[in-house]
Amino acid sequence: MQPYAELSNEELQELKKQLSAQYKDFQSKDLRLDMSRGKPSVEQLDLSMGMMDVLSSDDDLTCEDGTDCRNYGVLTGIKEAKELIGDMMEVAPDNIIIYGNSSLNVMFDTVSRSMTHGVMGCTPWCKLDKVKFLCPVPGYDRHFGITEYFGIEMINIPMTEEGPDMDMVEELVAKDDSIKGIWCVPKYSNPIGTSYSDETVRRFARLKPAAPDFRIYWDNAYGVHHLYDHDQDHLIEILAECKRAGNPDLVYKFSSTSKISFPGSGIAAIAASNNNLEDIQKQLKYQTIGHDKVNQLRHVRYFGDIHGMIEHMRLHADIMRPKFEAVTSILGRELDGLDIGRWTSPKGGYFIAFDSMDGCAKDIVLKCKKAGLVMTGAGATYPYGKDPHDSNIRISPSYPPLGDLILAMELFALCVKIVSINKIMANRKAEGLA
Amino acid sequence: MQPYAELSNEELQELKKQLSAQYKDFQSKDLRLDMSRGKPSVEQLDLSMGMMDVLSSDDDLTCEDGTDCRNYGVLTGIKEAKELIGDMMEVAPDNIIIYGNSSLNVMFDTVSRSMTHGVMGCTPWCKLDKVKFLCPVPGYDRHFGITEYFGIEMINIPMTEEGPDMDMVEELVAKDDSIKGIWCVPKYSNPIGTSYSDETVRRFARLKPAAPDFRIYWDNAYGVHHLYDHDQDHLIEILAECKRAGNPDLVYKFSSTSKISFPGSGIAAIAASNNNLEDIQKQLKYQTIGHDKVNQLRHVRYFGDIHGMIEHMRLHADIMRPKFEAVTSILGRELDGLDIGRWTSPKGGYFIAFDSMDGCAKDIVLKCKKAGLVMTGAGATYPYGKDPHDSNIRISPSYPPLGDLILAMELFALCVKIVSINKIMANRKAEGLA
Repeated sequence: MQPYAELSNEELQELKKQLSAQYKDFQSKDLRLDMSRGKPSVEQLDLSMGMMDVLSSDDDLTCEDGTDCRNYGVLTGIKEAKELIGDMMEVAPDNIIIYGNSSLNVMFDTVSRSMTHGVMGCTPWCKLDKVKFLCPVPGYDRHFGITEYFGIEMINIPMTEEGPDMDMVEELVAKDDSIKGIWCVPKYSNPIGTSYSDETVRRFARLKPAAPDFRIYWDNAYGVHHLYDHDQDHLIEILAECKRAGNPDLVYKFSSTSKISFPGSGIAAIAASNNNLEDIQKQLKYQTIGHDKVNQLRHVRYFGDIHGMIEHMRLHADIMRPKFEAVTSILGRELDGLDIGRWTSPKGGYFIAFDSMDGCAKDIVLKCKKAGLVMTGAGATYPYGKDPHDSNIRISPSYPPLGDLILAMELFALCVKIVSINKIMANRKAEGLA
Repeated sequence: MQPYAELSNEELQELKKQLSAQYKDFQSKDLRLDMSRGKPSVEQLDLSMGMMDVLSSDDDLTCEDGTDCRNYGVLTGIKEAKELIGDMMEVAPDNIIIYGNSSLNVMFDTVSRSMTHGVMGCTPWCKLDKVKFLCPVPGYDRHFGITEYFGIEMINIPMTEEGPDMDMVEELVAKDDSIKGIWCVPKYSNPIGTSYSDETVRRFARLKPAAPDFRIYWDNAYGVHHLYDHDQDHLIEILAECKRAGNPDLVYKFSSTSKISFPGSGIAAIAASNNNLEDIQKQLKYQTIGHDKVNQLRHVRYFGDIHGMIEHMRLHADIMRPKFEAVTSILGRELDGLDIGRWTSPKGGYFIAFDSMDGCAKDIVLKCKKAGLVMTGAGATYPYGKDPHDSNIRISPSYPPLGDLILAMELFALCVKIVSINKIMANRKAEGLA
């Protein structure tokens, strides 16, 4: 197909007329499609219903070490859950603390603790004039929300195909000791869907931050969330790499089973060096008597071990794969060659990133909404909700049934076309060419 | 029986010889008894095993309003859980936020948020030179732990039979705007076991604190934890009383089902005014996507309604009542008239407070330990672990089986006797009378 930019004003006008008629058709369908969040579909939730049967009143809710999971205690999680989650996170069970149902909450806590008590003996951030975080963009809005809530200044770091721009990261952390952290979704990254290269992970582990309390916030949310059985991204395990590089305390690693078992009722964890874990436990012992051990046991009894979990993830993949393929195939069919957008083709995770022409993302999302399709808000993938190019749109294919998703993506592509034509025409007008 | 203080030195010596022989007998039994925490017994945990059966893979995990409990969302808790917990806390469902498994964690969060973000627009506490809390003593060690962790200065407020010394509370909060809170366990108080009088609650609701961000931290942990069916303490509901007094925002109320369903796997909640809840939600929306709704639904399906919960608490009472009665009857039998200790006879809750002669508590707890009985550490019921009289000991009768408890209390009474004799002798020596 011919790039839109090569069409004449008249051709664009004519095309727009046709597309607008199609758009009116969509509007008449009274659609109510929601692709705003990375929510698992009902079909995926159904996969884990067996979780509800593994513990019954006939079962013994006792751990291998004799701990009664029903009672108080066990601050850092039961042993068998640490083993399962350790295998999932690719770290030793002893380097794990199991929390409640939300890894976001663990990250919030980690920042909050640093604000009030500092990191491993350093000055609490609330006593500093300025605290900054590096934010690879586009990224995860809820990460940015936490740092914004705590008044932490966020600095955009462009994402490349290899991960964050490491030249920029290395330079900034080395010279500015008010930079205390960087938000990372290293595997099947939110929203791009690509994974950090080996070289990127090695450079992360070898960072020489000016601030001794600088930490990498490594949110490995999609560690086992592959679409394919063999064609999988592989990520160098960051804790081990930091240890090998002589920087064992440089990273906090986060994960959860939210998109493995049930999103609201999974178990979350942090993995870190012994020094960091000791520091964290100084808080934890005041914060709680212990997290929900019955739910930890439920997960262990249901999955059995990491192999059981991986087999379970194949069932998720069977549901997710056709959806991801539908998105990329519709985008390819509708937009290839038009030069009005680019998109990624991830091998896992929950998101596909779409980049429109500059200055179009907000209009596209709005146009989708007016025809009944709710996308993630444009700008959400940037700190403060401000996408400097107004071009990034996060596509979340997981929640709608496949039929709805196909309809939604056709509508989305249509909106991209219409908004792009408007933009090209407006640009030409501004340049006196129309 | 004759008070020990009236016995001659020789009589005391002789008595001590007999008691020491009894103590040696205990030591030879190689006991391992733990009364250190207010943990429910195995028998009590068994009461709730039906919780494990109410949700199975055949069940629909959907709320009355159509919410799928398995998925993300619903920040403040599902409607039917708010209704159940609202009835339990005696407040309207709309004045409730349901959290995870631990009310301690909710209290920690509340203090932490006040440190970093302040209360309803007031200066964050971390920006203030000094923050103080009032601590009715004896009280709950984990409350004091939270305020100590945040560097908050704690001021002891003596407990009377009516609750905290309200003259002192009123005076202090009126004159010192660095006093930001007071820890209260108003019903079957930890560790005294008595409840605040109507007059005390009324005076709380009418406090005129100098600090606009002063809040009453009302930990109603034992609201439905009665021992008897009719002989129950009744507490004026504080939120309503504050509203009537024109101070709707003065209180945060905390509670959980930890000692109703399972201690590690219950649901916790905060109740507060609309203004306070709005303030809290400003944080909550960054902190989590939502707490464990499946567990909320599990509680609702299991208890049905507040009547079901109250019936369930009668089963707990049937187990707890003989234990409380064993403690008070053994203490009465062994110590009445000796004038070496006083204790409370609560009608509910988890604790009985014992007050030894001044300067004896630590020695009594140590002597118990050396014979295999672990009590709550002496001093634990005071801020900084410092009991100025070294006299208060918290007795937690819930965990040991009744037979063990009887043995434990006999040993305890014996240790009280021996340590008291030592103390009387030492006092006489110091005064030149021995």
